[in-house]
Amino acid sequence: MSTLEHVLIGGGWCASQDARGSFRAEDPARAEAIGPAFPISGEADIEAAMRAAIEAADALSATPPARIADFLERYAAAIDADADQLVALAHAETALPAEPRLRSVELPRTSNQLRIAALAVRHYAWTDPVIDTQAGLRAHRAPLNKPVLVFGPNNFPFAFNAIAGSDFASAIAARNPVIAKAHPSHPATSQRLAQLAHTALLEAGLPAAAVQMLYHFDNALGLAWAGDARLGAIGFTGSRGGGLALKTAADKAGVPIYAELSSVNPVFLLPGVLAERGEALAQEFFTSCTMGSGQFCTNPGIVIVPTGAHGDAFVAAATRLFADAEAKVLFSRGVQQNLVRAVDGLRAAGAHVLAGGNAADGYRYPPTLLNVDSETFLAHAERLQAEAFGPVSLIVRAQDTASMQRIAASFEGNLTGTLYRAADGSDDAAWQTLAPVLRSKVGRLIANKMPTGVAVSAAMNHGGPYPSTSHAGFTSVGMPAAIHRFSALHSYDNVPETLLPAELRNRNPGGVQRLVDGRWTDGDIG
Amino acid sequence: MSTLEHVLIGGGWCASQDARGSFRAEDPARAEAIGPAFPISGEADIEAAMRAAIEAADALSATPPARIADFLERYAAAIDADADQLVALAHAETALPAEPRLRSVELPRTSNQLRIAALAVRHYAWTDPVIDTQAGLRAHRAPLNKPVLVFGPNNFPFAFNAIAGSDFASAIAARNPVIAKAHPSHPATSQRLAQLAHTALLEAGLPAAAVQMLYHFDNALGLAWAGDARLGAIGFTGSRGGGLALKTAADKAGVPIYAELSSVNPVFLLPGVLAERGEALAQEFFTSCTMGSGQFCTNPGIVIVPTGAHGDAFVAAATRLFADAEAKVLFSRGVQQNLVRAVDGLRAAGAHVLAGGNAADGYRYPPTLLNVDSETFLAHAERLQAEAFGPVSLIVRAQDTASMQRIAASFEGNLTGTLYRAADGSDDAAWQTLAPVLRSKVGRLIANKMPTGVAVSAAMNHGGPYPSTSHAGFTSVGMPAAIHRFSALHSYDNVPETLLPAELRNRNPGGVQRLVDGRWTDGDIG
Repeated sequence: MSTLEHVLIGGGWCASQDARGSFRAEDPARAEAIGPAFPISGEADIEAAMRAAIEAADALSATPPARIADFLERYAAAIDADADQLVALAHAETALPAEPRLRSVELPRTSNQLRIAALAVRHYAWTDPVIDTQAGLRAHRAPLNKPVLVFGPNNFPFAFNAIAGSDFASAIAARNPVIAKAHPSHPATSQRLAQLAHTALLEAGLPAAAVQMLYHFDNALGLAWAGDARLGAIGFTGSRGGGLALKTAADKAGVPIYAELSSVNPVFLLPGVLAERGEALAQEFFTSCTMGSGQFCTNPGIVIVPTGAHGDAFVAAATRLFADAEAKVLFSRGVQQNLVRAVDGLRAAGAHVLAGGNAADGYRYPPTLLNVDSETFLAHAERLQAEAFGPVSLIVRAQDTASMQRIAASFEGNLTGTLYRAADGSDDAAWQTLAPVLRSKVGRLIANKMPTGVAVSAAMNHGGPYPSTSHAGFTSVGMPAAIHRFSALHSYDNVPETLLPAELRNRNPGGVQRLVDGRWTDGDIG
Repeated sequence: MSTLEHVLIGGGWCASQDARGSFRAEDPARAEAIGPAFPISGEADIEAAMRAAIEAADALSATPPARIADFLERYAAAIDADADQLVALAHAETALPAEPRLRSVELPRTSNQLRIAALAVRHYAWTDPVIDTQAGLRAHRAPLNKPVLVFGPNNFPFAFNAIAGSDFASAIAARNPVIAKAHPSHPATSQRLAQLAHTALLEAGLPAAAVQMLYHFDNALGLAWAGDARLGAIGFTGSRGGGLALKTAADKAGVPIYAELSSVNPVFLLPGVLAERGEALAQEFFTSCTMGSGQFCTNPGIVIVPTGAHGDAFVAAATRLFADAEAKVLFSRGVQQNLVRAVDGLRAAGAHVLAGGNAADGYRYPPTLLNVDSETFLAHAERLQAEAFGPVSLIVRAQDTASMQRIAASFEGNLTGTLYRAADGSDDAAWQTLAPVLRSKVGRLIANKMPTGVAVSAAMNHGGPYPSTSHAGFTSVGMPAAIHRFSALHSYDNVPETLLPAELRNRNPGGVQRLVDGRWTDGDIG
């Protein structure tokens, strides 16, 4: 096992103590193994990481926020400076386009997010201080003082990486140690990020075990770990099956889990807008559905299109675009197999293939469009709204607004829901009927825009009602809200001012907005 | 069954459709049944309530906040006006003192809390609007658009009543329909409150089924109901066993449950303060532990006292107070039986009884003090920190600060933790050692005050790490935070301003504080 890459445990890079095997990354475009062998960790690695993180938690809770911010900013700068190597590694492991996706979009998004987290830390913006001078009570959000375990997904090697993404940034911003479980489809990218993070950590003077990373472990170990009450919280982005299994284990142990699970992101095209610009919408839809080979949490997986001539024209135009496109490279054989199964499932439930529909060489799959009538959809709503992760979408034809309303009402919780409406006001009545129904089913309600863009903004909600995520009250993207997931509410009762955390003292550090005796203020007290 | 009291279902008072039996309240002081017979509901009542609540949810989501506030204020006024009858009913059913407890403390606290909720509603203070004009994103907290089921506890017939307490006020403030499950130990009190709530609801013009109430159902039905995915959330205050069973059911269905479960509220008396005023502390401790017959979530269940002369004097003084006190009336035979079992459990784990310790006539139990040395406590920490709900406390003797630190580290999550320190600074070093350890174990850290007072304040945290509650991030007391439990995060992306909720439009209604393009402001946009 001496040739295996090292894990980041206990404050440094070291050989896996009990590797149960090894794996290599693959070039998805050629379906070939690439790069070095990485260990599949066993219990000893997990226990070592937990013990180190538990020890680091105390030190980290007492670390000045400025030092946390310093780490996040150093790490962000290191990512920007290392862009060439990071993009090369991620492109090789994921087949995502180096430009513009990885270098011009995802990498700057990742370093930007770390900097936004740093800003929230410097200004105490995530701590929500509330002060009641009369009652002698002062409350704020505080570290969990326990390790946070983050499971990264396959689809964003930088921006949602367990060692660099929003879950990571959020958990460390709240001064919790993070143990990252890298996704095994991009281990070398994760390794490189972890190297940068570790160096930045040491430079900033944070506890060396505040950030740790394992590449892989088997599902049984993952479930046992999720049920370890020593954890403060879990962040997870991935499949519904895997996420729900972890949730069951975490729930039993009382460990909060923030899991982003699956979403089909319904898009309703109202009749007026179809008449106005159906052809352009077909192009917009196709681009959104096939970008990144369709491997987005917010991929438009179901599009509801009115029956009639304008709807027919839209479907015809979309079908041509899908049929003419080349097959897309997926991340792995597993993604391809799941997609084949998912499309088979849609067909079995009554959907018809308009374009694509057969797996291609390597880990490729063609842009695939299916359709179904509204009666069939409503009769098999559960099976027909199963996520098909890849460049696949299902068109549902609806006779009228009432039919669209029934379809909207049939959806499970989703991350997003979209309504396209006409500029001339002809869809306003339909909007008024549909929007309230769709609103309660989704985390983000979108007008006249495809759902795939997830802006890093304080006003973003990248979350949604169960089962799109595990809790409708939280977002995984957008500071400071995303940080709240990894905090505990702490109140101080009758505690002398000198013994309080900085942001609860009379002098207001960093100009954080505080609720003082019922009034919001960024000033000092007294 | 025609003689059974009516349930409040579907917008009016009606006979239980499928009562599985009936029960009556008891006068705990005389252990005798009193008042009329109330139905134990079956599935038909529950299903009827669910259907009515689901229908009410849509109307309620679209109800102007001013109307919700109007309801809360009318209800508060009605409670104040009906104080004579409410206090008489609650005193008869709980044996809690009419004065000062019920009339001068708990009743005004309850109406005050409803008014604070109304204020939060009027000013949109719970909605946390965040606006990013550049990204075209606007987010806020919104109704769940689903029913909220509230289980009330036995120990606060007004302030935590499922139809009048903080869970109720919070859920309805967020415009969710509430189905209250009254506690069967005070059905007539709950009935009277529900009558007042129902009248206020009709006067305010809210959907008549926005507030419903059942008196009782068996545990199996309760568990099945908690697992009904049509629920938006559950609020629960009660025993750990019952709460965890409901949590397991709710977790499986993806229903958020906010459960307050149990707490022993450790109190550490540091050496300096004991030397300064040990005798006075013994009185303070005795009063806190026996108030309301000790039936408080924040009862001081464990007191850590240094060894040595001052500690001995404190224990001797406390023992005298406990030994000289009369037996206290508990709420029910069940509470008495559980307390007998709990004290037996503490004895079996190595604690010795200093005073009290034997159940008395009726539902009485004497103020009971036990003690144990630190080694025994640490060796059986789990069994010795089991909650004994009633006028019972365990003294743990600790040799030094290091011993206190180990004891603090051994605690599960608790609602509160208290450190008493000397005025002369002699305990400062011990505070610095102990406070960080205790801080991460509790929701509210208290200095020099017993934990039983839970002020209704925005800076209160009546919550704590698992297993004291189901989630360390939330409080059940203190607006607007308590309202957040019953909200969903909603983001609007590219939605025209006229189609947005009021508090997300350019004009700022109610002067709510909003985060607009990174700056907090209560002004309008543009």
